Amino acid sequence: MKKFEEKTIKTKNIYDGKVIKLQVDDVTLPNGKTSKRELIKHPGAVAIIAITKDNKIVFVEQYRKPLEKSIVEIPAGKLEKGESPEVTAVRELEEETGYTTRNLEFVTSFYTSPGFADEHMYIYKTSQLEQLENPLEGDDDEFVEILELTLDQAKQYVEEQRIHDAKTNYAVLYLEMLGRK
Amino acid sequence: MKKFEEKTIKTKNIYDGKVIKLQVDDVTLPNGKTSKRELIKHPGAVAIIAITKDNKIVFVEQYRKPLEKSIVEIPAGKLEKGESPEVTAVRELEEETGYTTRNLEFVTSFYTSPGFADEHMYIYKTSQLEQLENPLEGDDDEFVEILELTLDQAKQYVEEQRIHDAKTNYAVLYLEMLGRK
Repeated sequence: MKKFEEKTIKTKNIYDGKVIKLQVDDVTLPNGKTSKRELIKHPGAVAIIAITKDNKIVFVEQYRKPLEKSIVEIPAGKLEKGESPEVTAVRELEEETGYTTRNLEFVTSFYTSPGFADEHMYIYKTSQLEQLENPLEGDDDEFVEILELTLDQAKQYVEEQRIHDAKTNYAVLYLEMLGRK
Repeated sequence: MKKFEEKTIKTKNIYDGKVIKLQVDDVTLPNGKTSKRELIKHPGAVAIIAITKDNKIVFVEQYRKPLEKSIVEIPAGKLEKGESPEVTAVRELEEETGYTTRNLEFVTSFYTSPGFADEHMYIYKTSQLEQLENPLEGDDDEFVEILELTLDQAKQYVEEQRIHDAKTNYAVLYLEMLGRK
């Protein structure tokens, strides 16, 4: 859909980083006036709702520099260039949790912040986890701790804002809803 | 929680825009090594799940420059400096939909993209809408079209990815779950 399309007059590249790029576009608005749009380009990301044999949900706790605190999230990671989201999902699951899976079910996908960023998040679910015999090393600048929680514990973490991000809040709500089917 | 804290060695301000700021921090990792973190500063945002008297959900369709397409979202907007989220919620509801409310229920809040941004999203719900007699003007660079959909229609829009962002996917799932209580 292109309703109310904003046509680009000029693009200015401000920053090209390790994870994100920033550009500022001059645009023509539907009423003919002009405005500026600040846009973050992001490679996209994948998150996994992973359920253990004893029906616990696998989370990772990690420090998030933008928030200056650590939060508890479902395992997730950025798409590498040319990588399909299913491949990213298994790789991140292996790197962050030591589990692997041969069975991924697509749950949903969404843009996380469509007002200023193009980050697209894919969410998968698996309840067929196998422990890796030789766990992989993750990124050398990532430090995570694994937690396995029941759904009731996870809901409590949401209440306490220890779980406090879009994909993870979504995941907890999704599992809560599945339980009501 | 400060687990695995990354201490800032140096902050470099790259860009200070209308909506977002970009800074790059040099940090010390828990293992003593250093790394760089790219951080977007955002004022925070509010979204409203608004239900009409005939049990329809109020959405707005708007062009999202980062995605180069228009998507259908629940009404939302950025916090003004010093503004409480409840005040933002009512203001954005009035500006974007022509409805107002005296009754807001807090649903949840979450960080949208904790890996690179500090944007914090508050979600409220109201089913006590009143039509404004003199609708307000919104921002002069915002063009939105109002849609009122049943929950089944909204779920169809999610399937078709016309609804395709974190807060709105969350809202549809939340209403689906409420219907099962």
